[in-house]
Amino acid sequence: MSVLTGNAIFGQSGGPTSVINASAAGVFTEALKQDCIPKVFGAAHGIKGILEEKFYDIGCEDPNEIQLMKTTPSSALGSVRYKLANPDVDDSDYKRLLEVFKKYDIRYFFYNGGNDSMDTCNKVSKYMQKVGYECRVMGVPKTIDNDLAGTDHCPGYGSAAKYIATSTMEVYLDARVYDTPMVCVLEVMGRNAGWLTAATSLASFKGAGPDLIYLPELDFDMDSFLAQAKAVFEKNNGKLIIAVSEGIKDKNGKYISEYGSDLANEKDSFGHAQLGGTAQVLAAKLKDTLKCKTRAIEFSLLQRCAAHCASKTDVDEAFRAGELAVQYAVAGTSDHMVGYEREPGNEYKCNFKLVKLSTVANAEKKIPRDWINAEGNGLTKAFIDYALPLIQGESAPPMEDGLPHFTKLKKVFATK
Amino acid sequence: MSVLTGNAIFGQSGGPTSVINASAAGVFTEALKQDCIPKVFGAAHGIKGILEEKFYDIGCEDPNEIQLMKTTPSSALGSVRYKLANPDVDDSDYKRLLEVFKKYDIRYFFYNGGNDSMDTCNKVSKYMQKVGYECRVMGVPKTIDNDLAGTDHCPGYGSAAKYIATSTMEVYLDARVYDTPMVCVLEVMGRNAGWLTAATSLASFKGAGPDLIYLPELDFDMDSFLAQAKAVFEKNNGKLIIAVSEGIKDKNGKYISEYGSDLANEKDSFGHAQLGGTAQVLAAKLKDTLKCKTRAIEFSLLQRCAAHCASKTDVDEAFRAGELAVQYAVAGTSDHMVGYEREPGNEYKCNFKLVKLSTVANAEKKIPRDWINAEGNGLTKAFIDYALPLIQGESAPPMEDGLPHFTKLKKVFATK
Repeated sequence: MSVLTGNAIFGQSGGPTSVINASAAGVFTEALKQDCIPKVFGAAHGIKGILEEKFYDIGCEDPNEIQLMKTTPSSALGSVRYKLANPDVDDSDYKRLLEVFKKYDIRYFFYNGGNDSMDTCNKVSKYMQKVGYECRVMGVPKTIDNDLAGTDHCPGYGSAAKYIATSTMEVYLDARVYDTPMVCVLEVMGRNAGWLTAATSLASFKGAGPDLIYLPELDFDMDSFLAQAKAVFEKNNGKLIIAVSEGIKDKNGKYISEYGSDLANEKDSFGHAQLGGTAQVLAAKLKDTLKCKTRAIEFSLLQRCAAHCASKTDVDEAFRAGELAVQYAVAGTSDHMVGYEREPGNEYKCNFKLVKLSTVANAEKKIPRDWINAEGNGLTKAFIDYALPLIQGESAPPMEDGLPHFTKLKKVFATK
Repeated sequence: MSVLTGNAIFGQSGGPTSVINASAAGVFTEALKQDCIPKVFGAAHGIKGILEEKFYDIGCEDPNEIQLMKTTPSSALGSVRYKLANPDVDDSDYKRLLEVFKKYDIRYFFYNGGNDSMDTCNKVSKYMQKVGYECRVMGVPKTIDNDLAGTDHCPGYGSAAKYIATSTMEVYLDARVYDTPMVCVLEVMGRNAGWLTAATSLASFKGAGPDLIYLPELDFDMDSFLAQAKAVFEKNNGKLIIAVSEGIKDKNGKYISEYGSDLANEKDSFGHAQLGGTAQVLAAKLKDTLKCKTRAIEFSLLQRCAAHCASKTDVDEAFRAGELAVQYAVAGTSDHMVGYEREPGNEYKCNFKLVKLSTVANAEKKIPRDWINAEGNGLTKAFIDYALPLIQGESAPPMEDGLPHFTKLKKVFATK
């Protein structure tokens, strides 16, 4: 493969994680070293920044600040949710991308995101090939949801899982403090895949986690749920912790969070209408059934941006995935995402591999049925064995004044 | 003062914090060293455990596990919310306490808690004096609310403040990731005093915190609030972060969270009724006013039990307060709480002092008006100067399998 000389652009896409910036740091660190890449650009708000010709000259950044990206959560360049049209129907975005690529001699396009973003990469790459513009396109995986096909796990997941399991253990201790009944429902992110919610089982593995866990992989049945909850509640002297994915649905495909609208018409004993997210709906139902104090806790945004409690394994792998994307591209690879592969055997070792973008685009990986227990309310040892290595090691930002010191990029526009 | 020989009992009371067990570790470590204290007991669920004759022999515990208490959140012995009656009206609990104290030769009573708990200490001490039972009673302060009178600050506050400020900074980064409008309302604990919510201003001090902060110290006015929010929203291109205390009330004393019941009768544009806690009520109002995506985030129990992100200053002071309570009692002091006093000057140094139980009992310390800005929607530098030293240094549990390793006490009953 001949050397391709030209500039590189990197963009961040989709929801934040604790390590999306670690991958960016990997891409930037490696790309800035390459002789065949004169300039490295960072797109403001992903593909939108390219379309709008808003991107930064990463060569102007202080290398220390690029290092600090490894421990700074969220997307330092800004992210976007933007789906490119089918180019056969509307190719205006693609024409515009080509125009910008040509104008700035962009020959390397690195994009960090989930399956939608890999779809974006795939479409861009196909278009550039069609019009004969030489350009290497590489995807860097990212999603706390851990639902990308073709990779053992995803950057961002390990850190979110570590935070969720840690916080669950702490809530467990908190919720048992009185000798009175107490029911907690923890709501974890995940519309279609239960990987994040399953991470609460790591706390159970440590003896301080939920009694019952419900994932979107299985239909949720309110009556069985209430019966299962009641049984544990009675066995445990009124102590009960439940974890649920925000996206659990009943067998008719109705989200449990939507039950809130129905509940709003019922009133509790104080005359208050009951409503809210999934955990709130279930807490209200449990209060009604068990006649005791219940509490709904949403990990909300905290779970995806808690860089102060990140997994070092995750951060290191995310950085490495960024570096490798550049190395592969420079060596001639295009149209692939950097994927993770676990070495067989008892000791965890993560190798990296190339996964075709088309494999990842728009696919979704769920938890295998046999990693969920027969009753559908907990995880098996297979899941613990899978997830535990991903949360090993502690990564946290350097501290200043007792608070995290996050990166501050200069963001010097390379454009206009 | 003559040496008083007899056993000691320690109890934990009220809501959990990250450092209540650190104070327990201080009491136990010191009491176990004292020749005049043959046996050290830990009451199961505070005063209730004494009344019910359920307490543990702390001498049976592994010293390593007692050390681990310094980084284990919540109440290892179990806590309680129990208010002793006025002994002039009903002295049955007091008679029972005396009976138990006599039976187990308890001559030292240490109690860890907030103002209610200091009231308990005070009542117990007065009763024992009245009936001529020699016993030294010492309070150890504790409350994330930081609202105890007679002390510069309270154990538990620094750790909660550090966690709240850290998480706020992370949410700030997360909430700015898209170039679209986004409004976040953070709900922080505090029914009557705004100390915890004020801690979000530490994130603002670092350039990554709320634009507006509302505390229960001032009446909350919905119209002014919406006007202030709108102004910031427009100035900041649709980015807005607000922090509120759960306990904010309007000028008629109605909790803003109660507005939810009214809102339940209004429907949003999707036909959903709106309801929830304070943040949810405000997020719904803002969505209506600003016509953009809003998110309500409750720090919930996480804020009071996040030992993985505790303040070393707080943990060390909490441990020291426990040690000192024992030393003071052995030296002859009774009827006091160990309080904190800040040395004047720029460098933070915490001294310890004795505060009369009657000073602390049932009193409540709020944020001074001049630490809140003139508009009533933010904190002044005086608050930052006050709070910043309290969050310095990092304390976290030792890790095992990538997760916190918390104490496991044997809990050998000393009774029956």
